[in-house]
Amino acid sequence: MTNSTQSDRTTFLPQNNEDATRFLDAFATMSSFGATEAGGIERQAATEEHGQTRSWLAGWLTERGFSVRRDHAGNMFALVELTPGAPYVLAGSHLDSQPRGGRFDGAYGVLAAAHAAERVVSHYRSSGEKAALNIAVVDWFNEEGSRFKPSMMGSAVFTGKLDRDVALGTTDTEGTTVREALTAIGEIGTEAVFGDSESVACYAEIHIEQGKILDKQSVEIGLVPSTWAANKYEISVHGAQAHTGSTEMADRQDALYGAALAVAAVRELADRYELKLHTSCGQLTVYPNSPVVVAREVQMHLDLRSPDDAILAEADDLLRRQFAEIEVKANVRIEKRHAHTWKANYYQGEGVELARTVADDLGLSNIEVQTRAGHDSTNMKDLVPTVMLFIPSVDGISHSELEFTEDKDLCNGVELLAETLFRMSRGALTGSPAQ
Amino acid sequence: MTNSTQSDRTTFLPQNNEDATRFLDAFATMSSFGATEAGGIERQAATEEHGQTRSWLAGWLTERGFSVRRDHAGNMFALVELTPGAPYVLAGSHLDSQPRGGRFDGAYGVLAAAHAAERVVSHYRSSGEKAALNIAVVDWFNEEGSRFKPSMMGSAVFTGKLDRDVALGTTDTEGTTVREALTAIGEIGTEAVFGDSESVACYAEIHIEQGKILDKQSVEIGLVPSTWAANKYEISVHGAQAHTGSTEMADRQDALYGAALAVAAVRELADRYELKLHTSCGQLTVYPNSPVVVAREVQMHLDLRSPDDAILAEADDLLRRQFAEIEVKANVRIEKRHAHTWKANYYQGEGVELARTVADDLGLSNIEVQTRAGHDSTNMKDLVPTVMLFIPSVDGISHSELEFTEDKDLCNGVELLAETLFRMSRGALTGSPAQ
Repeated sequence: MTNSTQSDRTTFLPQNNEDATRFLDAFATMSSFGATEAGGIERQAATEEHGQTRSWLAGWLTERGFSVRRDHAGNMFALVELTPGAPYVLAGSHLDSQPRGGRFDGAYGVLAAAHAAERVVSHYRSSGEKAALNIAVVDWFNEEGSRFKPSMMGSAVFTGKLDRDVALGTTDTEGTTVREALTAIGEIGTEAVFGDSESVACYAEIHIEQGKILDKQSVEIGLVPSTWAANKYEISVHGAQAHTGSTEMADRQDALYGAALAVAAVRELADRYELKLHTSCGQLTVYPNSPVVVAREVQMHLDLRSPDDAILAEADDLLRRQFAEIEVKANVRIEKRHAHTWKANYYQGEGVELARTVADDLGLSNIEVQTRAGHDSTNMKDLVPTVMLFIPSVDGISHSELEFTEDKDLCNGVELLAETLFRMSRGALTGSPAQ
Repeated sequence: MTNSTQSDRTTFLPQNNEDATRFLDAFATMSSFGATEAGGIERQAATEEHGQTRSWLAGWLTERGFSVRRDHAGNMFALVELTPGAPYVLAGSHLDSQPRGGRFDGAYGVLAAAHAAERVVSHYRSSGEKAALNIAVVDWFNEEGSRFKPSMMGSAVFTGKLDRDVALGTTDTEGTTVREALTAIGEIGTEAVFGDSESVACYAEIHIEQGKILDKQSVEIGLVPSTWAANKYEISVHGAQAHTGSTEMADRQDALYGAALAVAAVRELADRYELKLHTSCGQLTVYPNSPVVVAREVQMHLDLRSPDDAILAEADDLLRRQFAEIEVKANVRIEKRHAHTWKANYYQGEGVELARTVADDLGLSNIEVQTRAGHDSTNMKDLVPTVMLFIPSVDGISHSELEFTEDKDLCNGVELLAETLFRMSRGALTGSPAQ
C-alpha cells in the first residue's frame, strides 16, 4: 500500500499487504457497531453501541497480550509492559461519535493505535531489543461532547483540567449522569490507571483532517503544529411566555426571536474575518416549544474558533455589543457564559519534527496543517510531548454520515503511526536511550 | 357581585352571592389539578392531570343529574334531557392547557358552562316550565395543540373538519398516539355522543379575552362577531450536517442559520402592517442538536394571523419571496407546507345580538371584540348558531402562568352565560317556541 519497502529509506516496521488488509477488515468490523443505513455510525458516549465497540476492541487487544483497564473517568486503556517500571508511550483517540456521525472520526485513530502498537510490541518481542518505554492504547471517554458536555471529557479529567466528580455528575438531556451511563455498560473503573506506579511519557494521536486542505492539495499526511483557539458559550435568552395569536407584537418578549437574531449575528460575524474566524450555533432548545406559545426561554451553545487569539478576543467583544442591541430590539435578556475556552497553542516542535522525519522516511508527502477542531491531544500536549497526525478527509466532510477517507490513506496513517510510536518507544521525544 | 338584581332589568337567572362564592370555590379546586408553583397549570391534552380534572368535573356534574359521556374522539359531554327528543343547547370550552399555561384559558369556560347549565336546569326543574331545547356541557379534547397537533382537535372531529382516525393516530414527540393517551386515562368512548338520536341545535362558549382591549377600556364583556384569519405553516429547513470547528464557513449548509433568518423575517413582516398582522414562531427543533455539529435540518411551526384575508395573502406572498432569498443566503432548502388555514369569518349576527341584549339586561358594559386566537367555537359556528363571549384578561397575558382575570369578571361571565343559555334553551337562536 505504500512504498516503504524501497531500500533507500530507514524504516523499522514496514507494512505489508497482509497488515493493510487485516487493518481494513478490522475497521469494517468496528464500523458495524452502531452503523447507520447511510454509512455512518451513531455511537454516542456511554451508549450500548459505544460499549459494544469497546468490548470488541478490548477482546482484540487482550488476545494480543494487552492488559485492558478502565479508569475512574471512563477512559479505556490497553497496556503492554515491555520494560518493567518504564513509563509509557500512549496512543489513541476516541470511539464515541456524534449523532449520525461518520465512521472515521476518532474510531480510526483508536484502531490505528491498536494495530500500530501491536506491531511495535511484535517487533520488540521478536527482535529481543529492549524498549526504552512501554506502550499503551487509549479510547478517551466522551471526546464528542454531544451527549454529555464538555467535549474531550475523559482526557480533560486525565490531564487534571476537569474535576472527575464534576465530569461523572454531568447529565444528558434525559437526566442520566455520566456515572450512571458508564456503570450501565460496565465501562468505569474505580481508580486512575496511570499515576503512581505507571506514568505516561509521551502521546500520539492520528485523526482524519476534518478539513479539506490535504484533500485539495493531494498531500498524504498532515503534521499538526498548533490548534485554533476556541471560545464556547452557553447562552440563555430570557423572554416571557405568551399566546402567539392574541398577544400584540409590541407586547412580546419573544425569546426565540432574540435567539434567531443572535444566531444570525454569530454567523455574520465570521464574514468580517474571512477564513480567520469560524462561528457556529449547532444546539438550540426552545421552551416550552409549542406552536401557539411565544417562547419564554431559549438555550443555545455558540462556538467561535480562530487561529489567532486577538481575532477571537475582538469577536467576543463585537458579540457582546451585538447582543446588547438584540436585547433592546427583541425585548429579551441574553445571558452569556463562557463554557469552555482555549487559546491557540502549540504542539511540541520536536514531535512535529519526528513525525516529519518518519513521513519522509516512508515516502509520504506531508505538510503542516493547524487543527480547527479540538482533540484529546489538545489536552495531552499540555502534559507530555505529543504528536498529532492527520490523514485526508474527502471534501473535508465530518460530523456527517458522508465522512469518507480512502483505504490507502487509512493504511498510510497506520504505517506512519506505527513507525512514529516505535521511535517514541525508543526515546525519540523523551531523551531516554538514544534513537 | 353584579347589579343584575336591580329591578329595571328583565333577567331570569339572577346570580346571588352564594352562587358566586360556590363558583369561585369550585374554580379554585379545579385549578389545583396540574397546578404549577407560579400559579399556572400544566395540564396538556390527555395527560394524567387532564384526566384528573375531568374526573373531578364529571363527578360534580353527575351529582347534579347530568349524564356524562365520552365520545370516540375524546370529547367529554354532560347531558341533561329536559324535554325528551329535543335537540341540545351545548356550552363549554376545554380543560387542557399549554405547558406552564394559565389557569383560566379554556378551563374557565368549561366550569362556567357547567355552573350556568346547572342553573338553567334548576330553573326548569323548580318552575315546571317546558324547555324548547335540552342542555349539555362539553370539554372539547385537545384545544391547545401543544402536545398533539392540530389544535381544536376534538371540535374539528365533531364538526366533520378532521377525520377521526387521523386525529386518533396523531403522535406526540414521544411517539404516543392520541388513541393511546386517551385510553391510558380512560377518556375515550366508542362512538359519537350526538348524531343519531340526539343533536346539537346551538352552541355557546365563554373565554378570557387573551388580549387587552377589554382590560384597557375597562369594559366587562366582549361580544365576538368574527375571527381573525390564520395561516399556520410547517417548515422544514434542509442543510447538511458538518463539523462546526473544521468546516469552512463558505462550505456550510447550516439549517439553523437558515431557520434563524426565517424566524427573524417572519417577525419583521409584522412590522409592515402594524396591528393588522401577528406573526410567530413558537416551536423550533434542531437536528441533530449537538453543540459541535452544523445542523442538517430544522423543523418549525409558523403562525400568521390577521383580521383581513387580503393582508394574510399578501404576507404569505412576501414570505415566499423572502424564503427564496434565505435559501440562497444560507445555502439551504426551505420546505413550506400549509398545516392549517382559516379565513376571517363571522359568528351568526343573531347570536351577537342575543348576547348584547343579555349583557345590557344584566347591566354589563360590552363591546364587540374580534378573536385573534382560534377557539372550539370557531369550528362550531360553521355547524350551528354559536355565541362567543369574552371576559377581560389583565394586561392581555395568556398562555402564561401570569394569566389573570378578576373574580368579579369571572362571576359576571357565569351570570351572562347562564342567562344566555337559558334564552337559547327557550329557542332564542333556533326559532323554536318564542322566547
